[in-house]
Amino acid sequence: MKKLRCGLIGATGLAGQQFVSALKDHPWFELVGLAASPRNAGKPYVEALKAPNGMLGWFLPEELPPAIAKMTVQSGAELKARDFDLVFSAVESDVAKELEPKLARDIPVISAASAFRYEEDVPLLIPPVNADHSKLIETQKKRRDWKGFIVPIPNCTTTGLAVTLAPLESAFGVQAVMMTSLQAVSGAGRSPGVIGLDIIDNVIPHISKEEGKVEIETKKILGGIQSPHAVKVSCTCTRVAVLEGHTEAAFVGLKKKASVQEVAAAMREWKGHEAARSLPTSPKRWIAVSDDPFRPQPRLDRDAEGGMATSVGRIREDGVLENGVKYVLVSHNTKMGAAKGAVLVAELLKQQGIVV
Amino acid sequence: MKKLRCGLIGATGLAGQQFVSALKDHPWFELVGLAASPRNAGKPYVEALKAPNGMLGWFLPEELPPAIAKMTVQSGAELKARDFDLVFSAVESDVAKELEPKLARDIPVISAASAFRYEEDVPLLIPPVNADHSKLIETQKKRRDWKGFIVPIPNCTTTGLAVTLAPLESAFGVQAVMMTSLQAVSGAGRSPGVIGLDIIDNVIPHISKEEGKVEIETKKILGGIQSPHAVKVSCTCTRVAVLEGHTEAAFVGLKKKASVQEVAAAMREWKGHEAARSLPTSPKRWIAVSDDPFRPQPRLDRDAEGGMATSVGRIREDGVLENGVKYVLVSHNTKMGAAKGAVLVAELLKQQGIVV
Amino acid sequence: MKKLRCGLIGATGLAGQQFVSALKDHPWFELVGLAASPRNAGKPYVEALKAPNGMLGWFLPEELPPAIAKMTVQSGAELKARDFDLVFSAVESDVAKELEPKLARDIPVISAASAFRYEEDVPLLIPPVNADHSKLIETQKKRRDWKGFIVPIPNCTTTGLAVTLAPLESAFGVQAVMMTSLQAVSGAGRSPGVIGLDIIDNVIPHISKEEGKVEIETKKILGGIQSPHAVKVSCTCTRVAVLEGHTEAAFVGLKKKASVQEVAAAMREWKGHEAARSLPTSPKRWIAVSDDPFRPQPRLDRDAEGGMATSVGRIREDGVLENGVKYVLVSHNTKMGAAKGAVLVAELLKQQGIVV
Amino acid sequence: MKKLRCGLIGATGLAGQQFVSALKDHPWFELVGLAASPRNAGKPYVEALKAPNGMLGWFLPEELPPAIAKMTVQSGAELKARDFDLVFSAVESDVAKELEPKLARDIPVISAASAFRYEEDVPLLIPPVNADHSKLIETQKKRRDWKGFIVPIPNCTTTGLAVTLAPLESAFGVQAVMMTSLQAVSGAGRSPGVIGLDIIDNVIPHISKEEGKVEIETKKILGGIQSPHAVKVSCTCTRVAVLEGHTEAAFVGLKKKASVQEVAAAMREWKGHEAARSLPTSPKRWIAVSDDPFRPQPRLDRDAEGGMATSVGRIREDGVLENGVKYVLVSHNTKMGAAKGAVLVAELLKQQGIVV
Repeated sequence: MKKLRCGLIGATGLAGQQFVSALKDHPWFELVGLAASPRNAGKPYVEALKAPNGMLGWFLPEELPPAIAKMTVQSGAELKARDFDLVFSAVESDVAKELEPKLARDIPVISAASAFRYEEDVPLLIPPVNADHSKLIETQKKRRDWKGFIVPIPNCTTTGLAVTLAPLESAFGVQAVMMTSLQAVSGAGRSPGVIGLDIIDNVIPHISKEEGKVEIETKKILGGIQSPHAVKVSCTCTRVAVLEGHTEAAFVGLKKKASVQEVAAAMREWKGHEAARSLPTSPKRWIAVSDDPFRPQPRLDRDAEGGMATSVGRIREDGVLENGVKYVLVSHNTKMGAAKGAVLVAELLKQQGIVV
Repeated sequence: MKKLRCGLIGATGLAGQQFVSALKDHPWFELVGLAASPRNAGKPYVEALKAPNGMLGWFLPEELPPAIAKMTVQSGAELKARDFDLVFSAVESDVAKELEPKLARDIPVISAASAFRYEEDVPLLIPPVNADHSKLIETQKKRRDWKGFIVPIPNCTTTGLAVTLAPLESAFGVQAVMMTSLQAVSGAGRSPGVIGLDIIDNVIPHISKEEGKVEIETKKILGGIQSPHAVKVSCTCTRVAVLEGHTEAAFVGLKKKASVQEVAAAMREWKGHEAARSLPTSPKRWIAVSDDPFRPQPRLDRDAEGGMATSVGRIREDGVLENGVKYVLVSHNTKMGAAKGAVLVAELLKQQGIVV
Repeated sequence: MKKLRCGLIGATGLAGQQFVSALKDHPWFELVGLAASPRNAGKPYVEALKAPNGMLGWFLPEELPPAIAKMTVQSGAELKARDFDLVFSAVESDVAKELEPKLARDIPVISAASAFRYEEDVPLLIPPVNADHSKLIETQKKRRDWKGFIVPIPNCTTTGLAVTLAPLESAFGVQAVMMTSLQAVSGAGRSPGVIGLDIIDNVIPHISKEEGKVEIETKKILGGIQSPHAVKVSCTCTRVAVLEGHTEAAFVGLKKKASVQEVAAAMREWKGHEAARSLPTSPKRWIAVSDDPFRPQPRLDRDAEGGMATSVGRIREDGVLENGVKYVLVSHNTKMGAAKGAVLVAELLKQQGIVV
Repeated sequence: MKKLRCGLIGATGLAGQQFVSALKDHPWFELVGLAASPRNAGKPYVEALKAPNGMLGWFLPEELPPAIAKMTVQSGAELKARDFDLVFSAVESDVAKELEPKLARDIPVISAASAFRYEEDVPLLIPPVNADHSKLIETQKKRRDWKGFIVPIPNCTTTGLAVTLAPLESAFGVQAVMMTSLQAVSGAGRSPGVIGLDIIDNVIPHISKEEGKVEIETKKILGGIQSPHAVKVSCTCTRVAVLEGHTEAAFVGLKKKASVQEVAAAMREWKGHEAARSLPTSPKRWIAVSDDPFRPQPRLDRDAEGGMATSVGRIREDGVLENGVKYVLVSHNTKMGAAKGAVLVAELLKQQGIVV
């Protein structure tokens, strides 16, 4: 099978590097174009990464793939849609607003940016949860008169929560969610990211706009194709001294009473949407439930199933919400919640014949 | 005024060291006796602290007071009640169970241990919140036929929560509380405490028995002298890489609707119980409310007012609970939540004429 | 006594805030003017600190002094020398290069910036070590035809090392120094500082230009007024996950053989230059020597004597250097090594009649 | 090929778990017996790991291999030598002293414990550095009249240093080494390990006995089979807030002057002892030299080549030692420096026909 030719915009940032890693040796996709800001255009990728102080600027523990290192970086504005079958986007939201629609006129854009997440004709896809929302793409293309389209992934904090709510919704119905997150610093990227002075021996009790994103996105993802779910969602989002892996303490009010065992079983047995079950990046199980009262922990559980499984533990009754249960989850914010999650979406769309 | 003669049991542990610090230069109390395990009996305090590997074993940044350094440590069992007007207890719960009642036969025991917290005739005192619960001491003395008594302080995680609920209870009534804590490692002490391997780049999503303690204690403290409050409480307690200062994300359902401004005002203006307002260890204000959306932070706010104020920020509406509000608090777990909080209780009881 | 009127340039940055704190309630100096970048000119200090996202921007655990909060910030270029008796400088090096000479034409400038440290007619003062280097100021004023002058403090990493070398130099002579530093993140400030992603669970083995600074400055400080000391210095400077307090592992070759006990005694008994002994900011002792093999530790020792003492421990023989000894030191990089150290220099110069 | 039957003593501790991981799917060795303390004898491994508080007690991010989970744990004293072709030892030094010689009477023991490291007839093997020291095993067997033998691996801090000194020794000769280590907390294990209270926002400037071990072991490893090398070694060993990967700042005096380029080339081109080049656990290169002035960093470099390569950077001239060079290295203390390093030794001995 011939691989699809993929472009990547925002290639030099941390999110972009994670896409490079997620696409390495991919069976269906091949990275054939890298774009970044104009000042880096024309340079080999490895040179574009370099900082003025000599820092090489590749921030992942795995080696920069040599073939990618040599690829010439283009400026985003120069990218020719005809050179690609689809484009992954790792740019900041303001750049996304300009660049993504330009590309979407001709080709599919799978984006980690939030710029288009809240538009009515834009689906917010987590393949195991709402693979059928991809139907909205047809509407989007028509309404905008585009040959391509934009599909963003949700905020990384939404992803883990929505994955764990999906089996509860289908088994018992979900009517209320209260969540406190303990988020990893990688979620803030590197420019400027979270500074050490602010996070060592500390908690930052606020992440700008994050709570609103989680509340709106959860309803959109759990809802119908164009009608948000009626679930009430209330969050407090905090930042802790963790590198990767968001931890979330969830309290969920169900529509139907369910025991702790039933909740655990619903999560354990959940297979997710059929279309998402055997994609190249799909894990064996979407949710890993632990009986150890001290799990999940971000350091030990974030990489479960290559960072694609959401780990759940501490399932208990909650005495405040109606039919309340509570649990703790860990989701890898820069894998399932970012680049690998976006690649999974692209895989789904290819499987569904929407990306060709 | 002659100072009251105080003993300290559990003097060599971290909690004991914090009592030594809290009592330094106290205007009403003087530390005249130190007790620890029998293997340290007969040694000067500074020697009893020393570890076999040469470590001096005094773990506070301030200097060990030289007069205390020289005091001879006794074994807890040897302590003579007649040498003291009251005793502070920093021992582990199992030791407390034996030693505290023995001392309480003759003298007051103010304890940081949990051993007696849940007995019906034992008040759980936070002076600004429920100073009148000290009336229960009379009942305790009669029922047990003791000349002294035991008054424990609550769990350090309960304290910050209860302090912030008190003004809400008195202004609006409180009917439901959901709380996720991000607790400091100092809460676990040093033996063995939380190991670095478990907490660096990590969150531990469970603290044994902590959630049950907070749920029961909150009801007892906010309730009548012998009747727990009907408030529903549900918690998830986690440990994060913070040295001192527990952060708690609280979601509170009020009896009466209140705006964010009204909630902030209720906390800002709250003066606490009259008897607790001008004790030597009382802060100028019990609650410090911040408008900075990024506060409170444990590192910047734990030491507000000498660690005796609870810092609150991020007061917002909550859309899930009836008349819901949410906020974040930081409370110093080893000051207001431990030794200094216990000293405050002793001050209250002296002020009330119960300790003489 | 009338206090000297002090200005502060670079007032809004972290270093500037530390000057505000160091000058609070100072017996000799009064902060009467604050300068920052032009975009903040005209605002009250508390407003100038605020970030666009609502963050209050005061980063010290102690409260912002209310009187300072209200002071109107000027732009650096507007400052009138006649309004001040001296100016403290907390600006970045490139700003210092322009602004400091302009002010020094008329008034003394005590600077934390590195811009003028390496000029021949500029002394690098650590009051207990080389108080007599202030004689160079006369030369500077003449040569530059200034009424004022510039005196910078050394790099924070140099300070702790030089303080511990001074008693060794005077007792035994020092001929070689090898040093590996484990530096705190506060040394890099906040813009951008060291990001959490780079320092959690990590060490950064390089700090740009730092090693060269320490090597040159140590020679200048230990040397004669205009002739650097002949000591050989070789460093490796690293960054670790510590908020405040630089730790340095020093290996020193002495001119004369000395035992561990003699080295410890030389440090313990060292009183520093007479002129520096009883300044308002002077500690009781410049060096605190510990026998605990596990000290000094930055968290426990950085605040010794208000952050003005250098803590030393682990004094041992070294078998490689001629007459080698080795030890570990901790010095507070943002107190003795920055704002409070600069205030100490101003105190010295006032004591010496150079600042009036 | 039939795999050799391996036993593992100390199987439940953190070091033991790392052996379980290192031996998973090994092409030459098969783990067929697990031993731990008598209280765990008779339990399946997964049960022996469990803590009384419900914690599962498997501390590696990768899953516990299901086949190992089910194996029945024996007490160390019960182990029958005849059931094994060799035994790996992950016990504490005091247990090693008793148990290892008992086993060595009949079979080879490859040990991570320090108990026998300093005996004259015991080689300290790092396969690429001194594979020929295995000749000493014959002497050991004869002198002690054993059918088996004991071969310990060096202290994890020695390993990285010795690997980087080896190419310098062979190219230029090494006469003096000064080293300051910044060691990871995993080196201290879990019982009790380094507590969070001691290492968050801190450095511990001492590790009991570590410096002496590194000094003696370095000479033994770089020396002849029974004659330690004459190199002078002086160390300061510290602990920092890093999970895995020891960082070491080395200053080395060479016998022959060499430029920075020559030193880098010597390390880059070094292939190590021929016998060690293509063992199953051998990395492609023993030393990875970086030009990035900000590398090596423990978080980014510890896992280079599966944790078996030592990463080196910041090679510079040193102006104090004769023919001095300095550099920073990172070595994975629980892979190359522990279990995987011990497996590599076993592979070498099998390759050499000593283990059969």
